[in-house]
Amino acid sequence: MQPSLPVITLLTDFGTADYFTGAVKGAILSVNPVVVIADITHEIPPQDIAAGAFTLLAAYKTFPARTIHMAVVDPGVGTTRRPIIVSANEQFFVGPDNGLFTYIYDREPSHRTVHVTNNRYFRPSPSSTFHGRDIFAPVAAALSNGVAPEDFGPEITDEVRLPSLQTPTRIIHIDHFGNCVTNITRDVLPAEKILVINGQTIREFREFYGESEEASLFAIWGSAGFLEISVNGGSAAKILRGKVGDKVLLTQRRKDAKKA
Amino acid sequence: MQPSLPVITLLTDFGTADYFTGAVKGAILSVNPVVVIADITHEIPPQDIAAGAFTLLAAYKTFPARTIHMAVVDPGVGTTRRPIIVSANEQFFVGPDNGLFTYIYDREPSHRTVHVTNNRYFRPSPSSTFHGRDIFAPVAAALSNGVAPEDFGPEITDEVRLPSLQTPTRIIHIDHFGNCVTNITRDVLPAEKILVINGQTIREFREFYGESEEASLFAIWGSAGFLEISVNGGSAAKILRGKVGDKVLLTQRRKDAKKA
Amino acid sequence: MQPSLPVITLLTDFGTADYFTGAVKGAILSVNPVVVIADITHEIPPQDIAAGAFTLLAAYKTFPARTIHMAVVDPGVGTTRRPIIVSANEQFFVGPDNGLFTYIYDREPSHRTVHVTNNRYFRPSPSSTFHGRDIFAPVAAALSNGVAPEDFGPEITDEVRLPSLQTPTRIIHIDHFGNCVTNITRDVLPAEKILVINGQTIREFREFYGESEEASLFAIWGSAGFLEISVNGGSAAKILRGKVGDKVLLTQRRKDAKKA
Repeated sequence: MQPSLPVITLLTDFGTADYFTGAVKGAILSVNPVVVIADITHEIPPQDIAAGAFTLLAAYKTFPARTIHMAVVDPGVGTTRRPIIVSANEQFFVGPDNGLFTYIYDREPSHRTVHVTNNRYFRPSPSSTFHGRDIFAPVAAALSNGVAPEDFGPEITDEVRLPSLQTPTRIIHIDHFGNCVTNITRDVLPAEKILVINGQTIREFREFYGESEEASLFAIWGSAGFLEISVNGGSAAKILRGKVGDKVLLTQRRKDAKKA
Repeated sequence: MQPSLPVITLLTDFGTADYFTGAVKGAILSVNPVVVIADITHEIPPQDIAAGAFTLLAAYKTFPARTIHMAVVDPGVGTTRRPIIVSANEQFFVGPDNGLFTYIYDREPSHRTVHVTNNRYFRPSPSSTFHGRDIFAPVAAALSNGVAPEDFGPEITDEVRLPSLQTPTRIIHIDHFGNCVTNITRDVLPAEKILVINGQTIREFREFYGESEEASLFAIWGSAGFLEISVNGGSAAKILRGKVGDKVLLTQRRKDAKKA
Repeated sequence: MQPSLPVITLLTDFGTADYFTGAVKGAILSVNPVVVIADITHEIPPQDIAAGAFTLLAAYKTFPARTIHMAVVDPGVGTTRRPIIVSANEQFFVGPDNGLFTYIYDREPSHRTVHVTNNRYFRPSPSSTFHGRDIFAPVAAALSNGVAPEDFGPEITDEVRLPSLQTPTRIIHIDHFGNCVTNITRDVLPAEKILVINGQTIREFREFYGESEEASLFAIWGSAGFLEISVNGGSAAKILRGKVGDKVLLTQRRKDAKKA
């Protein structure tokens, strides 16, 4: 078997129509020309840190050990917010210290974080507007060349964190198919509950999308580990008029059935 | 010359804004970290199997021998529809048995198909909602590691097929530039015909787009091997109000000219 | 350290929903299966050569020496417009001779250009509608295999050029975040100037986006080396009703301040 190539993933809010992602790839390849660059997405809504954090959470575990995840949703670029490297799950995470890695911290309690201060790994004369190209890309590439995290700067433990993903119970993501991903995990949903979102009640639970031909709303355990609201062959988000942040109410199945 | 790296192409309806394509890439790289992953597209209209089948047909022949095409447009994920591997044109095709490979079967009569049943090549505890990540990606990666198709399961000959691409004569695709791709091939269009679509008559045939400056509709042999309706510097689809499935009528050039 | 893989970048107006970019990647990998393909963008507005030229200008310098940039925005495909290879900045540029490389010529005065005429490097029976797949991709791949530019055809010096990027002073690009990129560079903006665009005056200059919380328009030196008009957390293009080509007026800071 051939030796493995290092993998650098990219997750940004840069869109794909500009020179931004190309410039990042060039900056990586200029430091390490033998690397696999895997785009996760560049379509995080502009400056939506929580959306970036969710998408990274849903994708990182499928990648092999030693993968370097470069994530840039960075409204504070150029301010004093810190560039950081997080070591967790035998992988690395490179990006701004603005909460983007919150859900990684939650899932990987033994993570370690360094504040990247050693500018010998930056591009010369880094801009104050595009740290993706000038700081995060060359740092990620240096990591892929085998530079140790501690060579980039001092360890820190006071990382910036987003509010909890656990509460309140809500829609945290709407996907391309219109599925509404909630923050409900298997350990918090007792079997006897039903869901109410925006005044609409979801009583049906399914194992897979095509279980029945009926086009009514149902709940299903999604592939990111969260309960999702779906509809067969359509968009649950449209039917629910659901959007990220909408509350999800859990009520008792039996009692509710008697009332109805 | 260096030895070739295996190529895995991706064609899905996942969109590019979610974690889906990232998760698929991670699942591949976890099984084979030395592979070239080439996105064909992730923007097949959601659950539109025929659109996926057309795009795969138009792209596969340019790839080298031993390429593995992973294609996932899969409304029946989690049901009893079969995961399959098709061997054809010295390449492999991995995806659901729902018709997605129909046009490959038509073009490659000596193809062979196996029903993928050997779950030792799946990810542990595969979900019932994301076989792209949990079944098709690791199977494609195992193929790229040299596992033989027959190791994945028994051969089958009753693959699911879409209706014919040949009849009726119609628009089968509208591309990014607004060109309307018909299902007319060189062997079925006699020289004396003219085309009528949505009440509009196309009499002009061109060799290349910029042959004349005129902004009128014309027919041209497109790069996928089908007759396309185009307009110079504009969208033929807009002018024709054309959409996939619209009928294309072929009438006699001479007779029609006299009537007019 | 492992030997470097050759890098081929792709910049086109093909969009990402069709088979076009897949076919290009297949055509490259069929000629050189050991190459890194890096998408810059496929979302140049259809047939907008100037937009493609700008994006290439903004991205090329971050890539390593010997990178091959394949750029295809090609309304004249199939006409007598020439396919060319430009050698500049220790890199190669492959595409149509329609002005797409104008800004590279300006930045790299010692560039050399050849007219690609040697059809032994084309795909067999090239189409007249898709030179990206049939000519530019295999030529780029042959370059990556070490074929010298002079083997593709004779040197030329009369390349087609777009109008100047320097004058008149105008918006040349609007990015994904709504920043309005002007063609003003550091050497042409005296310190005492203020900007007027579409009747709105911009007096504030910032070093980085988040310098102040105020949501007013400001000017900032962007990462492509041009002055940009931005607004914190919003779209400057929306506020200015700005579009590519809009004039930017420079007036004296002091005089204007007294008048106001």
